[in-house]
Amino acid sequence: MTAAISLYGPVVADLPLVEAALARVREVEYEPLRRMLEHILAGGGKRVRPALALLAGRFGSYDLTKLVPLAASIELLHTATLVHDDVIDRSPLRRGLPTAHSLFGNAASVMVGDFMFAHAADLIASTDSVPVVRLFARTIMALATGELAQDVSAFDYRKTIQEYYSRIGGKTASLFAAATEGGALISGCPPTWIAALRDYGFNYGMAFQIVDDILDFAGSEAALGKPAGSDLLSGTLTLPSLLLMERAGAKNPVRRFFVARRNREQRLAEVLEAVRTSGVLDEAAAVARDFANRALAALEPLDGGAARSALADLAEFVLVRGS
Amino acid sequence: MTAAISLYGPVVADLPLVEAALARVREVEYEPLRRMLEHILAGGGKRVRPALALLAGRFGSYDLTKLVPLAASIELLHTATLVHDDVIDRSPLRRGLPTAHSLFGNAASVMVGDFMFAHAADLIASTDSVPVVRLFARTIMALATGELAQDVSAFDYRKTIQEYYSRIGGKTASLFAAATEGGALISGCPPTWIAALRDYGFNYGMAFQIVDDILDFAGSEAALGKPAGSDLLSGTLTLPSLLLMERAGAKNPVRRFFVARRNREQRLAEVLEAVRTSGVLDEAAAVARDFANRALAALEPLDGGAARSALADLAEFVLVRGS
Repeated sequence: MTAAISLYGPVVADLPLVEAALARVREVEYEPLRRMLEHILAGGGKRVRPALALLAGRFGSYDLTKLVPLAASIELLHTATLVHDDVIDRSPLRRGLPTAHSLFGNAASVMVGDFMFAHAADLIASTDSVPVVRLFARTIMALATGELAQDVSAFDYRKTIQEYYSRIGGKTASLFAAATEGGALISGCPPTWIAALRDYGFNYGMAFQIVDDILDFAGSEAALGKPAGSDLLSGTLTLPSLLLMERAGAKNPVRRFFVARRNREQRLAEVLEAVRTSGVLDEAAAVARDFANRALAALEPLDGGAARSALADLAEFVLVRGS
Repeated sequence: MTAAISLYGPVVADLPLVEAALARVREVEYEPLRRMLEHILAGGGKRVRPALALLAGRFGSYDLTKLVPLAASIELLHTATLVHDDVIDRSPLRRGLPTAHSLFGNAASVMVGDFMFAHAADLIASTDSVPVVRLFARTIMALATGELAQDVSAFDYRKTIQEYYSRIGGKTASLFAAATEGGALISGCPPTWIAALRDYGFNYGMAFQIVDDILDFAGSEAALGKPAGSDLLSGTLTLPSLLLMERAGAKNPVRRFFVARRNREQRLAEVLEAVRTSGVLDEAAAVARDFANRALAALEPLDGGAARSALADLAEFVLVRGS
């Protein structure tokens, strides 16, 4: 975590302002809501999306009175989607802590997620920029469509890698793209730079999600804060399992797991073993590397400086993280 | 329905523009999402919230390029909250049709609700007014807090009438208030008029919800599109049942129903019978009348004209509807 944060370069000193904005989200009168928000927002995180928003802002007129609400809004939006995801996946744990829905129930979790979306919208409105508000709204539409695609195709072993890219583009990369595009928009960058920074954010987000999906197979339960293979357990095929299916044809352990009615634990162990020994994790890492390289290439038209170096470092090191 | 719509006076002719904006919400590429939106948005409705937004706009510079997105956004927001409510209450029917969650499952319904919230935010952004965006965001926060309060206190028979008012203020009246305040804001009304129209919307919304809660006891299943007593079934105490408890003291049929583990149908029938014969429905209607009178009083400072007459008529006839 410390290592990751040092990569944030020239904006490290400003991230506490984002923390303060997020802390204010918990300050609500209605006590049951306050308790839920305190639990949900206590987990912390690497704040990579806020850092990207601030870094993009460095390419224009760096106005923290607008960039901090943007950065906090993006992080809050991200956290709100996690709350709704956990309701949907019935996940008991996140980052090693009980999820909101397992503590407070589905109904309350749907509502607290809605509240957080709304608070994120309020923060975005305080940037005073209608284009940024529209970007925000369209990002949520992309997120919801991506999540819906994940749900609709759950436990469907005929999914393709192309669908996977479109799904993670919607549910993850679009928010990273909104962070960098939003930062560039707010700080008044020229249109080519806005497009370049959006492009960077999108490709970085793709790489980031693929690394996440690799870790779900390769990571230890202690590092992940949840059991390995949890994506498959909730019916979600990700790049490693999709590559494995492509290699193994009709008779593959993923399909056997998806159609199994009994011995599901053993079937899952077989998939984990096959994924870990088949070389598909290395292939998936190469794909992540490829997206990271596209992110690096997107930086081409931008002027140098500390922010550009920080973005380049982040893309360089996206494959290096433990959880 | 025709009767209600004729009360909308000078904006009746513009409501088809709102319908057209709502129809465009369904135009999404991803086919499973399109099918869900088509089902959810097919139900129609009296469009009372859009009508109020347009009517409020009549008091200033009536610009449909901004008022129509506002009106459509408010209706979409309302529909999105219904989708999430039905997930929470596990309601099988709404307006006589199967609910989204009973057709598509919880997960997809949470996501399609999020998508609709986001589309509503996009519509609001197209009004180009940051104060209206903030009003929108804060309204969702109030809605979510109201719904959360309803969930947190479900099956709690110690609730008070004061809590009920605060709950329906958040979950219903705040959206009516946003419709009229938003219309007034967009059309550039002076601050005293904006406040008066917000006040009207809020009190009208309170009356509207109380009438809804009366109909849940007094209406027939055919008219309601769901069984009578459905609020109690999902653990929600409303004004009629709260008044009954106040009258009957500790030994009351509501409490017996709430704590019953068996014979729940018979216990519910006892509550319905007691509510219908005890006079509490008349008392509740008098309270609704009182809120409608406050809405009428709020119109005081406003200039005359067809829009003012329409708002007065709506408040006059809020108690007269069959479903």
